Amino acid sequence: MSQRFRTTARDAASAARNGLLETPHGMVETPAFMPVASQGTVKALTHALAESLGAQIILLNSYHLSLRPGVETIEAMGGLHAYISWPKPILTDSGGFQIYSLSPLVKVSDEGVRFASHLDGSKIFLRPEDAVDLQVRMGTDILMCLDHFPSYPYTEETMRESVRLTTAWAERSRARFARYDGRQHLWGISQGGIFEDLRRRSIEALLALDFSGYAYGGLGIGEPKTRLLEVLERGHALFPEDRPRYLMGMGYVEDILEAVERGVDFFDCVLPTRNARNGTLFTSRGRVAIKNVRYARDPRPLDEACGCYTCRNFSRAYLRHLFERGEMSSAILNTIHNLYYYLDIFRRIRHSIQSNSFISLKKSLIFNDTDKEETK
Amino acid sequence: MSQRFRTTARDAASAARNGLLETPHGMVETPAFMPVASQGTVKALTHALAESLGAQIILLNSYHLSLRPGVETIEAMGGLHAYISWPKPILTDSGGFQIYSLSPLVKVSDEGVRFASHLDGSKIFLRPEDAVDLQVRMGTDILMCLDHFPSYPYTEETMRESVRLTTAWAERSRARFARYDGRQHLWGISQGGIFEDLRRRSIEALLALDFSGYAYGGLGIGEPKTRLLEVLERGHALFPEDRPRYLMGMGYVEDILEAVERGVDFFDCVLPTRNARNGTLFTSRGRVAIKNVRYARDPRPLDEACGCYTCRNFSRAYLRHLFERGEMSSAILNTIHNLYYYLDIFRRIRHSIQSNSFISLKKSLIFNDTDKEETK
Repeated sequence: MSQRFRTTARDAASAARNGLLETPHGMVETPAFMPVASQGTVKALTHALAESLGAQIILLNSYHLSLRPGVETIEAMGGLHAYISWPKPILTDSGGFQIYSLSPLVKVSDEGVRFASHLDGSKIFLRPEDAVDLQVRMGTDILMCLDHFPSYPYTEETMRESVRLTTAWAERSRARFARYDGRQHLWGISQGGIFEDLRRRSIEALLALDFSGYAYGGLGIGEPKTRLLEVLERGHALFPEDRPRYLMGMGYVEDILEAVERGVDFFDCVLPTRNARNGTLFTSRGRVAIKNVRYARDPRPLDEACGCYTCRNFSRAYLRHLFERGEMSSAILNTIHNLYYYLDIFRRIRHSIQSNSFISLKKSLIFNDTDKEETK
Repeated sequence: MSQRFRTTARDAASAARNGLLETPHGMVETPAFMPVASQGTVKALTHALAESLGAQIILLNSYHLSLRPGVETIEAMGGLHAYISWPKPILTDSGGFQIYSLSPLVKVSDEGVRFASHLDGSKIFLRPEDAVDLQVRMGTDILMCLDHFPSYPYTEETMRESVRLTTAWAERSRARFARYDGRQHLWGISQGGIFEDLRRRSIEALLALDFSGYAYGGLGIGEPKTRLLEVLERGHALFPEDRPRYLMGMGYVEDILEAVERGVDFFDCVLPTRNARNGTLFTSRGRVAIKNVRYARDPRPLDEACGCYTCRNFSRAYLRHLFERGEMSSAILNTIHNLYYYLDIFRRIRHSIQSNSFISLKKSLIFNDTDKEETK
């Protein structure tokens, strides 16, 4: 597989690194945050707004999109980029997570996953080959292999079976992907939970298949934080430097910083966008629950330190009013802020690695502890 | 009252005119469409988007805003413009329409209106003086007098009583307004339905009070179109040329064109924004119901002739997908289109009057008949 990721800078004091990923729709600078756009839109934003905030790549959901509008429609419209009019890179997930979390009657066999559509209950059988075919046909830039993971808490035994299936499916995905022209990326997903031996075996099996990128799957679902960080540390020692690493679905700034420190390049999470719609805003001084009555006459912006459209123009008082009235502009303005906040942190992370100041940036951000309620 | 409206051009073939209104927050070129922003936001847009589409002035609802967040909060925040961070002109309606349409237990006396809040049932008594005080305190640019109108169908007798009350309240509003510095505008509202004598008496009584602008109230609620147009024609003969005329709440393009032809300067309506959220789009070839399955793979923009962000970037297929998925970006993109469509027609109306081509513009727009379903 041709080399399309290179490390452009390394932090002297940690495994944090800057990288550049080449895709059919342009380059992505890493570490990168991928806003979630499951149905082909970042919720409550236009593409122009998402791009203006600094989104380099968005994550779409091949499970949702294959149910509606269906791969035939997407193909007929010229592929995902043409269909949704997004010119930049797209990563699609295989749908594994949605199948296990949304579908009733999931039945896993060596062959694949049988499940009922969460929409109409119709039976669907998805093999790893199908997941590859669907994503290739959709024209995504980065495909993810179909994987399997048990829910938390898990036993070593159930996790062993997950790794066995995930490995076998990765082999079949890789073989299927070889039928195509290889312009797209196919990334492998490791499983194994927090079990050292299982995670190592999962990663080594993927490495033998030579994917153009590797993901940590099945993390951030309840396991102790220290164990998770150990997984990333051991993974860093195993993964080759010239392939991107993606920690799936984890979105708290504190966790992201720990992961970047351990060599992770790609992130996605619904946290900034979903919380925005729920009225929970991230600021440099902590979380703000905008519905709180204490903001009813607060003339300050959400975050004095923030340069986003929302903070440059609107008071907390007005944002609270919009939220309380159920106005869609509440979701728009809040999403603009939260996503800018995240993407700005990623800009600062990238710059800090270039200037060997990542650890001090990390300390300043974790000290502010944006996951806690705002300090007075 | 100082002169703050002047006619800048007159159509040679009709009563259509260009005007310029001066307000404390800038000028408005007429004929003008005022997007409805009842709660202080055009629904599903940011202010930046509304301004980029060409909104010169927006309409806020003093009834809704006096209930929540309340005039005290708005005053404490420095008035409406500061509270909502909208720098351009604002017109507020007095709340009469909302009281009669939303509130249970409305009881009208000479003194004013007693009604129950549609939110919590609490009893409120609103006199014409209160409506003036509220709007002055909110810092709006244009206040509307509290008026009274019966619902359609009405009898001449009930309408006579409406005119009597509306006239008496206009006198009291005018007297109350004289207490203030007069930088804001207070516009009088005429009633009288389609009854020639009553409408004339209502208008003449307002003229004697010398308002800085005049509105047609109680129209577009079910009366025959020809009768409505007669009201506007007779009104044109009565109103002085140097005061703006406002036809309240009427929004079909065809009606707007007929009214402009009869000398009307200001319009407002929820039609473009509400229909956008419901998936009904106005185009130069007719209405498009975007949920229709026939658009599922339609690669065309909503309107080939339209220059808005939505039409320049997105297919009907994608817009249908967003609508069907219930994505907020559906409401955003649809509102951008419908509001651009309206504001662009107003730009063309203004230019056509300057160039004495209003009647041919009107014919071309009515020929297209945007109120009908799209032609194939």
